[in-house]
Amino acid sequence: MGKKKTTFNISKKDNFSEWYTEILAKAEVTDMRYGVKGFIVIRPWGARIIDKMYRIYESALRATGHDVAMMPAVIPEGNFKRESKHVEGFAPDVFWLDENCTGGDEKLALRPTSETAFYELYNFWIRSYRDLPMKMYQRANVFRNETKATRPLIRSREFHWIETHDAFATKKDAEAQVQDDIVMTEEVMHKIFGVPFLPMRRPQWDKFPGAVYTVGSDVIMPDGKVIQQPSTHLIEQHFVKAFDVKFVDEKEKEKTPWLTCYGPCMSRMMASILAQHGDDNGLVLPYTLAPVQVVIVPMGLTAHRSQLTAAVEDIKAQLLHEYIDVKVDDSDKRPGEKFFFWEMKGVPFRMEIGEKELENDEVTLFTRDTKEKVSVSIRDLPETIKNLGAEYDERLIARANEFFGEGVVDCKDKAEIKKALDSGKVARFSFCSAEKEGEECAEFIEKELQARVMGTRGDLNEKASGKCPICGAKAKVKVYAGKSY
Amino acid sequence: MGKKKTTFNISKKDNFSEWYTEILAKAEVTDMRYGVKGFIVIRPWGARIIDKMYRIYESALRATGHDVAMMPAVIPEGNFKRESKHVEGFAPDVFWLDENCTGGDEKLALRPTSETAFYELYNFWIRSYRDLPMKMYQRANVFRNETKATRPLIRSREFHWIETHDAFATKKDAEAQVQDDIVMTEEVMHKIFGVPFLPMRRPQWDKFPGAVYTVGSDVIMPDGKVIQQPSTHLIEQHFVKAFDVKFVDEKEKEKTPWLTCYGPCMSRMMASILAQHGDDNGLVLPYTLAPVQVVIVPMGLTAHRSQLTAAVEDIKAQLLHEYIDVKVDDSDKRPGEKFFFWEMKGVPFRMEIGEKELENDEVTLFTRDTKEKVSVSIRDLPETIKNLGAEYDERLIARANEFFGEGVVDCKDKAEIKKALDSGKVARFSFCSAEKEGEECAEFIEKELQARVMGTRGDLNEKASGKCPICGAKAKVKVYAGKSY
Repeated sequence: MGKKKTTFNISKKDNFSEWYTEILAKAEVTDMRYGVKGFIVIRPWGARIIDKMYRIYESALRATGHDVAMMPAVIPEGNFKRESKHVEGFAPDVFWLDENCTGGDEKLALRPTSETAFYELYNFWIRSYRDLPMKMYQRANVFRNETKATRPLIRSREFHWIETHDAFATKKDAEAQVQDDIVMTEEVMHKIFGVPFLPMRRPQWDKFPGAVYTVGSDVIMPDGKVIQQPSTHLIEQHFVKAFDVKFVDEKEKEKTPWLTCYGPCMSRMMASILAQHGDDNGLVLPYTLAPVQVVIVPMGLTAHRSQLTAAVEDIKAQLLHEYIDVKVDDSDKRPGEKFFFWEMKGVPFRMEIGEKELENDEVTLFTRDTKEKVSVSIRDLPETIKNLGAEYDERLIARANEFFGEGVVDCKDKAEIKKALDSGKVARFSFCSAEKEGEECAEFIEKELQARVMGTRGDLNEKASGKCPICGAKAKVKVYAGKSY
Repeated sequence: MGKKKTTFNISKKDNFSEWYTEILAKAEVTDMRYGVKGFIVIRPWGARIIDKMYRIYESALRATGHDVAMMPAVIPEGNFKRESKHVEGFAPDVFWLDENCTGGDEKLALRPTSETAFYELYNFWIRSYRDLPMKMYQRANVFRNETKATRPLIRSREFHWIETHDAFATKKDAEAQVQDDIVMTEEVMHKIFGVPFLPMRRPQWDKFPGAVYTVGSDVIMPDGKVIQQPSTHLIEQHFVKAFDVKFVDEKEKEKTPWLTCYGPCMSRMMASILAQHGDDNGLVLPYTLAPVQVVIVPMGLTAHRSQLTAAVEDIKAQLLHEYIDVKVDDSDKRPGEKFFFWEMKGVPFRMEIGEKELENDEVTLFTRDTKEKVSVSIRDLPETIKNLGAEYDERLIARANEFFGEGVVDCKDKAEIKKALDSGKVARFSFCSAEKEGEECAEFIEKELQARVMGTRGDLNEKASGKCPICGAKAKVKVYAGKSY
């Protein structure tokens, strides 16, 4: 059936776009053959990674006082249009349901995001200061009618995310939540998934429709392009007022709560994880997220087949008992084929067991990222694997940090900015303003250098100096700019 | 802020409909105020139950060789219409997207179910007998444009389910899967969630559109009405052929695989769980599914406040360490209010700790279902709770079985059937036929007795005897009939 020896060998550095498209198909992460633009199929290998991501993210959210809810996937037109900036920002991207089939109901939109659903209920649920903070999230599929070219997992018309909606009594508390959201991105996306990022407070012209301000998490892809991962927003109070959400404080005074929202997108984040860690031979999955953490390959040896099978079953049971995801590949493929296949899929550890290993009470362990083989005692295997898995993830993170550290270049003038961008770096430079008056200079950069002004640091204050390299006015802010998809 | 002492005391037996509506609101399971018919909000208390249900169901599916995938929420009209019986059955209930916003794409439906998405891909994924069986599932929100009156969780226009789609080389294997699906419903819905059911092979006129046959799981609600929980289907081969899904067998011969699907719906199943176990004072949640399994109420005692707080924190940490969901209610409400609140929410165990308990190194444990209080040593509390939790769930299941056992009545004639139905029972009787020719008698029963012929046992053979009580023809099958919503 057209089975051919597949090899994967594409330079991630030189041909990232090809590498990305090919590995998603070869490693069976996604399937692009569904036939509707921007709606992709996520195959088991991808769906199991996303499932693990959801569990980790949801645990982190619950540990920080968020509770789960489930909102309808449709939003009535009246809700959606209640806040003018929000509707202005999202309306062009909305899928509407055919009015002929909703039977006299109000016109319904497929949710592009769910502020206007949550706020409808916060109007009922928030009564007094005792109800605050109210911190909720949902895991949901959301829909954006993208007109730009879609890219698998990166820009699609349906995606799978988590959205939090938090309400506070004071602006100070809400702003602290925005910082907490940045910390969560750091704790989960960086320190567990191994994807470093720049927390960027967006320029005023690029914030979330309905927000006072937005902090996005910009990740540098292997080709130097920047993509936004979770963003967090402080919501404008007139958005909250439009839904009549209010509370009575300790002094019986009616007030409007301050709201924030945060949107880590699992499907899009998986794109960064795969791109970040992969190498020219395919995926290199973090140990924590790999659907198969250890693949056991029994080696030849028909003479002692039953002894071997028993040993393999015993090891498998031991690992499973310690919640290690293990798979035995006892198919009739040649060992070389199996090795290649599981390497390409990104499995962290391959365990080979044959005659020699059986005799010595050990296994041979191949590690995906270093490509090294070592002999490991059969005693305490689960403990050994867990320790090696932790070290493996640390290496992945260290390597990602190294790449990321090289990714930002300080620039003084237009020529330096251009040079940095052309060599696939993010440029950092002093800039006139991140307020409305800076937009013209940003547009110039977009047109001349095909790069986007990402904003200023959202987690710390970086001082500007000198003049804006575009308009020559006194620089007020230190900004970052990068190319994006 | 209108805080009033709430009490819950509605007879579940006499006023089930009121009980159900009120408890969903009072226990904060769902919220009906979203304003779009049939689209409900599931609040944290409900969402956390559903989350636990999903985890248990997904584990069971993986343990039986199913792998997870994620399909698009939209289905192109061409896919949807490829199989005439399927489209005929579902078309009236489909939400279509407004064609003006899909930009020249094919007309898109919101998935009412995903056969026509999975089969599109099985066409690519299934090549050879080596690919079989292929067993996949997804957790998904699906949409049915219900025109009948909707009921929270029971009949809604969006619901949250799991759907499996399994492909086999032979009809025998596929039929074995249908039986395995019934076993899974038994293992999970009955033996873990405590909801007994009748596996009913539907009459031909009531099967899934596109199926050879359907086995539904009928649950008897407290008011004697029957609702369908998971159903499993053997799919007709021309449905599979319409998607050109085929495989090459060992002898290089091209064949059409046999497909099955199974659809446990978490939101609807929660309705049965809540209805099954609740009592006149509110919810009684299974220990396994309760968002809070133990609520700790520190009792008064300002003199030893710090000692008490330390003891409570220590117990909480111990329980959490053993993955027991625990909550400390140290709000300033009166103890009686707290007791009432957590009883109404269905928390299995309330742990009271005060001066007496501290002195004796024990806690007072109130158990929700029996309403008994016992003193329990503070030593090995997690172990004690786990054991009591297992016993508690066993009691719930035994009680459900007892109710269920009373629910089916053997009937010989029309009068007996009517009597059984009128007293809120399911009637079992010999019947002319579950094939096309029996439909007229079923319609008669529907019209005259407002009851539905549910079908014949799907898991075993029950012999018919005598004549059909409706038409008088020789009875070929033993059927069940019940009232439904």
